[in-house]
Amino acid sequence: MTGKPEVARSPLAVAFPAMPDIAGVEIATARAGFYKQARDDILIMRFSPGTACAGVFTRHKVGSAPVDWCRKRLAASHGRDIRALVVNAGCANSFTGRPGAQAAGRVATVAARNLGLRAREVMLARTGVIGVLLDDSRIVEVLPAAARSLSPDAWRKAALAISTTDTFPKGATAQASVDGHAVRIAGIAKGSGMIAPDMATMLAFVATDAAVEPKALQDLVDLHVRDTFNSVTVDGDRSTNDTLLVFATGASGAPAISTASDPRLADFSAKLKTVLLDLALQLVRDGEGASKFVKITITGARSDASARKIARTVAESPLVKTAFAGEDANWGRIVMAVGRADEAVKRERIRVTFGPLTAARDGLVAPDYSEAAMSDYMKNPELEVGVDVGVGRGRAIIWTCDLTKQYVAINGDYRS
Amino acid sequence: MTGKPEVARSPLAVAFPAMPDIAGVEIATARAGFYKQARDDILIMRFSPGTACAGVFTRHKVGSAPVDWCRKRLAASHGRDIRALVVNAGCANSFTGRPGAQAAGRVATVAARNLGLRAREVMLARTGVIGVLLDDSRIVEVLPAAARSLSPDAWRKAALAISTTDTFPKGATAQASVDGHAVRIAGIAKGSGMIAPDMATMLAFVATDAAVEPKALQDLVDLHVRDTFNSVTVDGDRSTNDTLLVFATGASGAPAISTASDPRLADFSAKLKTVLLDLALQLVRDGEGASKFVKITITGARSDASARKIARTVAESPLVKTAFAGEDANWGRIVMAVGRADEAVKRERIRVTFGPLTAARDGLVAPDYSEAAMSDYMKNPELEVGVDVGVGRGRAIIWTCDLTKQYVAINGDYRS
Repeated sequence: MTGKPEVARSPLAVAFPAMPDIAGVEIATARAGFYKQARDDILIMRFSPGTACAGVFTRHKVGSAPVDWCRKRLAASHGRDIRALVVNAGCANSFTGRPGAQAAGRVATVAARNLGLRAREVMLARTGVIGVLLDDSRIVEVLPAAARSLSPDAWRKAALAISTTDTFPKGATAQASVDGHAVRIAGIAKGSGMIAPDMATMLAFVATDAAVEPKALQDLVDLHVRDTFNSVTVDGDRSTNDTLLVFATGASGAPAISTASDPRLADFSAKLKTVLLDLALQLVRDGEGASKFVKITITGARSDASARKIARTVAESPLVKTAFAGEDANWGRIVMAVGRADEAVKRERIRVTFGPLTAARDGLVAPDYSEAAMSDYMKNPELEVGVDVGVGRGRAIIWTCDLTKQYVAINGDYRS
Repeated sequence: MTGKPEVARSPLAVAFPAMPDIAGVEIATARAGFYKQARDDILIMRFSPGTACAGVFTRHKVGSAPVDWCRKRLAASHGRDIRALVVNAGCANSFTGRPGAQAAGRVATVAARNLGLRAREVMLARTGVIGVLLDDSRIVEVLPAAARSLSPDAWRKAALAISTTDTFPKGATAQASVDGHAVRIAGIAKGSGMIAPDMATMLAFVATDAAVEPKALQDLVDLHVRDTFNSVTVDGDRSTNDTLLVFATGASGAPAISTASDPRLADFSAKLKTVLLDLALQLVRDGEGASKFVKITITGARSDASARKIARTVAESPLVKTAFAGEDANWGRIVMAVGRADEAVKRERIRVTFGPLTAARDGLVAPDYSEAAMSDYMKNPELEVGVDVGVGRGRAIIWTCDLTKQYVAINGDYRS
């Protein structure tokens, strides 16, 4: 049983969008009681027959029972005929050994029975405290009623049911054209702490009524995850349970596409990326205790990979993040973080910009640097920091937030 | 001009020891005015002729003018006949290009003139804000008076003069025997933020009256720095200015030793390590905002290097550090951090201990785990966390502190 501290809505929050029904998708939420508060903590989604599924999971070395389950099911089915998803918040069922795996299996079995499916057609995801065995009886109890309440228009309730320390529900949607047919994409996400590249600590579930074969769907997801979910970081910590699942029901009537490079998928691919990026950036906007939304762009690196490592080092530096929190025009800390990434940089060529202002150029403070102007700029809730490291043509963008006293308060008191 | 916020003395502070005079060492401090407060911010040390010097510097890719200077001087002199050290707090003179290098050179030249030396015999170190050009005229002005006030017994004043956000002065001392002769070692250090392995962000200066040839002295320092200064971390951030310098005057009359492996140096080597470790742990005890002193021991890793990487990942995880701050028995976060280090671990064999308590064993919560007992343990100001990752025989220890609201306050307001 976890107690969620009372946390004010993030000042960087965005509104939950009007979400379309996605043909072939039904949604229900329920309260299993993992929280003391009266809130739903269970999400069930049912998909029409023939739904394709693609997934990306944490690269965490410990992982969790639900992640193990999804990996196995996806591998065995090749992403074909995945028919349901059952999610709970409040207990991660991670680091719980064989008993945890057995609990996961029981949830899938009972969910399948209530939905008229087989256990192997059910995907699972969980979020919450690590190391606590899932009390699956809580979930099993509420599944029958939940299965009877499925409806296509419960996206917002779904986003709320999977949240933990989130201060606003996260959704994104887009419409795309596949060979002249309109298709829809809708997705939700949760997560505000333990967020880092190589899956932010987060759950995200996206559904579309486009008809995309599993292999093509997985290729698209793999293509876009790098510049979306894997380009955000809140605290550098990585969850055992990170899960992104994309479901394509094919119920729109658009033609089925079997390869990601098919030009008929170009618009769908672009719009899918838009939805994934929108969700990923909302995670940052809800970074625990965040008061600043910061885009860090590194250019001039030896390679894109080198630029990513530098960008991540800057984005995760406690001294950089606390300077953002303090609205402190202490650009020297950016230089400090760039230099400790252990990547090639040319000191005499380093340039540092904050929005339209140049702080440093050619390895020292810019001649026209104005601390007053920089201090004014730092008051913006959204900041853009650019660093050119003067070596090559590699570039990368990472989005992050600041590190505030509120982050410490939230994470020191999470289970109290 | 920097303003040091009023910060209470660390609850983990230790007393400054009674320091011996070191034959061949004279010390003076002065106020150059880099701080608004009435405090000394300049340290001068003069060493007797023939003093050997060894140094370890930041591996930061940007570095700073004083670090560049020391590296060049040590390489050119092979560590022989280094006769003085000039340090200032309040301005790092880092990322200041050619003007910064010229300012460093002027300080060395004027210091040498006042001390009856040549500029190349003078070592330099600085700490403070990055990116601000050193106003060397401030230092030059006070050097003559400082040079006239040199005395052997100013260690405590020296430790205070080099401090920035430190809340207590840091010193350590030991006595050793070299071939039957008593020799003394004394050292001071500063640093409480931007502290990470691969030189903590810190300055440390150690002097001994032992007679150790430069090559042997450097070998000893290189040997011991890994398990002392490079085994502590506060925030994972690494300074551009990290400097450890060890000076051996030889004025004790003990025989000169020219190889580190000479058995006559064994006791000296052990005592030198004691002094380095004492200073390094004091940095952690003064970690910005620290309320807990935490020793993290990783065993069962594939190699010592792998264990070090895991230990560092745990020690620098914001979620782990905030749990310590909140006295939260959330041992699952330790597992989270272990698994995101991208090192080999065997989930089914992982064991997690907190002091005498076992939280997890064989990959899940221990049968006799008591949250009440664990919560009591977390109230201790000094904590020991052990993780066996079940793969091999590699082991490592890292010392760190917690992440508190006070850390954010200190670093958000540093330059205000």
